[in-house]
Amino acid sequence: MTFSITANDPQSKARTGTLTTEHGPIQTPIFMPVGTAGTVKAVHQRELETDIDAEIILGNTYHLYMRPGLEVLNQAGGLHGFNGWRRPILTDSGGYQVYSLSNTRKIKEEGVTFKSHIDGSKHTFTPEGVMDIQRTIGADIIMAFDECTPYPCEYGYARQSMEMTHRWLGRCIDRFDSTEGLYGYKQTLFPIVQGSTYADLRRQSAEVIASKEREGNAIGGLAVGEPAEEMYAMIELVNEILPADKPRYLMGVGTPANILEAIALGVDMFDCVMPTRNARHGLLFTTEGIMNIKNEKWSRDFSPIDAGLGGYASTFYSKAYLRHLVKSEELLGGQIASLHNLTFYLWLVRQAREHIAAGDFVAWKNEMVVRLMQRL
Amino acid sequence: MTFSITANDPQSKARTGTLTTEHGPIQTPIFMPVGTAGTVKAVHQRELETDIDAEIILGNTYHLYMRPGLEVLNQAGGLHGFNGWRRPILTDSGGYQVYSLSNTRKIKEEGVTFKSHIDGSKHTFTPEGVMDIQRTIGADIIMAFDECTPYPCEYGYARQSMEMTHRWLGRCIDRFDSTEGLYGYKQTLFPIVQGSTYADLRRQSAEVIASKEREGNAIGGLAVGEPAEEMYAMIELVNEILPADKPRYLMGVGTPANILEAIALGVDMFDCVMPTRNARHGLLFTTEGIMNIKNEKWSRDFSPIDAGLGGYASTFYSKAYLRHLVKSEELLGGQIASLHNLTFYLWLVRQAREHIAAGDFVAWKNEMVVRLMQRL
Repeated sequence: MTFSITANDPQSKARTGTLTTEHGPIQTPIFMPVGTAGTVKAVHQRELETDIDAEIILGNTYHLYMRPGLEVLNQAGGLHGFNGWRRPILTDSGGYQVYSLSNTRKIKEEGVTFKSHIDGSKHTFTPEGVMDIQRTIGADIIMAFDECTPYPCEYGYARQSMEMTHRWLGRCIDRFDSTEGLYGYKQTLFPIVQGSTYADLRRQSAEVIASKEREGNAIGGLAVGEPAEEMYAMIELVNEILPADKPRYLMGVGTPANILEAIALGVDMFDCVMPTRNARHGLLFTTEGIMNIKNEKWSRDFSPIDAGLGGYASTFYSKAYLRHLVKSEELLGGQIASLHNLTFYLWLVRQAREHIAAGDFVAWKNEMVVRLMQRL
Repeated sequence: MTFSITANDPQSKARTGTLTTEHGPIQTPIFMPVGTAGTVKAVHQRELETDIDAEIILGNTYHLYMRPGLEVLNQAGGLHGFNGWRRPILTDSGGYQVYSLSNTRKIKEEGVTFKSHIDGSKHTFTPEGVMDIQRTIGADIIMAFDECTPYPCEYGYARQSMEMTHRWLGRCIDRFDSTEGLYGYKQTLFPIVQGSTYADLRRQSAEVIASKEREGNAIGGLAVGEPAEEMYAMIELVNEILPADKPRYLMGVGTPANILEAIALGVDMFDCVMPTRNARHGLLFTTEGIMNIKNEKWSRDFSPIDAGLGGYASTFYSKAYLRHLVKSEELLGGQIASLHNLTFYLWLVRQAREHIAAGDFVAWKNEMVVRLMQRL
């Protein structure tokens, strides 16, 4: 994998770049739609490619390990072979799901033992095991196995957890570097900065992660309930330490405003379930602000969902029609809203790139964070 | 509306024709996907037009009357304006839903009083009211208000009900003929033959319906639980009476075999929720037979869903991937299966047309009813 910076914003840490994988290039800053169980919910693969123009999507190790399972994925030639997505894929390490979905999990130095949320069966994830699983899934970018601490988190626990995440990282790297991809293309491993909202821990973690000299680095454990200002402060200090010539991935973030602010702080990659999950509840992100399509005020608004955005979902269907579908709990409602919201998120990062290249990113960003977050 | 027969099968009553509406032509025999609440469940409008190539879709008067309601539909310029579908639409009369969905309904000579399945509010449908509602929805083809008897049905009740349906038909025609379409194009009204499974009642009803000399005629009250042979017998005798130069619509039918047999008996139009409803439960109709995609046997079958059918859903996605989605209750599973099944149903009627035109329909039909109904 190679990464080259193509433009630097003079007034912020924002930059544009090209990340090249064997499944094609990714222009950064980029938003990566979340394809939990090998599908971006309610969206066809060709819609992702053509309408949304997603350049990379996520898969979740925990979900894919549970269903369809590693044997099926291996026989399919990995997740690309299984779901037909031809562009790059990134998989998380499964850590986050193990903590949030499993009703019983036990974290030890060796790894995490947990019960399946589907059938209650018992499983263990270790750093080595998670590397092997991600080799089988075959994503272009795979993530280290970490512990994502909750918010708030006591200092003592945050430090111990971070230190274990660092020891686990060593084991992940050992396993990853002594194995090879199974399907004839290279994979790359991103380590993850932890440390909760403690500046000294975040600095310490960023230094450990930077010292590993991997091809890209991630910031985890944020957007878990802390105030946005605290999140931005952590990103800022971590990004001073993480190398500027490597892509930086902020995990699980966030709102359009979060993304623009983090881009200004030098983040290159984002993922979040928000555009698809909110879509299924009728919450739309548009070029004019946020819309709850269930509101009565849209019932006779026959104008397009978002004429300013363009694209099929946003211009073919009206607000009133989408409202009717969502209120009636029709499947097409979630489909249209998901397609719209993801089209919007990809438009947002493309716009950011253009403004970084044009040198007016900060002024544009400051205007957009206000406009995009207002309630319509 | 005009209808012209383009070919007659020498060995059966099957024929091909062209039905022309102000929203475009319909080649018959045709299958009409059911768009209950103004949406064919889980299918985008452009998929209906491009992938499935549906020539006409259905809307349900009962559902549309409940949500979004007549005011919204009227302001939108009718259902076409509301959902963006540019080709012809047919609406049922709401009768079937009133009987099957409403927990309390009272049938009187004047009309039917019932409670909404959504909020329990009380409503009355009369023949005149249902004509007005269908004027507001604005479908190209609208249906008379009838009573659809259950199966089995006592002779006395079936006769009384049929006679009331005939009286209601008179009121429907009076109202329809004394009003005009609201949106600048013509609508047409199809009357409905009833009579349960009683040959004498069916004959009597077909004669009454034929005597009205409308532009098309429908056969209702079948596929409600009676044996297929009884259904075919009723269709056969009704079609001897319904004029051959008008389209014949068999309501709510059916399996691929039902459709082919009814085409052989001279039916031109079909609708059924089966392809979409079964799809959401993982039941697929394919060119090789019927598949329950949830079966373990498909878990490692990475071949296309139905290579013989062609089209996006059926050739891009594999059986194993679709099985995974349906088992995981992912929305995309229902989307792919619905797109596939409807593509199959439209392929089926197009194939039927080709074989009627080629003169080998019966031999082809006899082979297909066996092949298409076998369990894979």
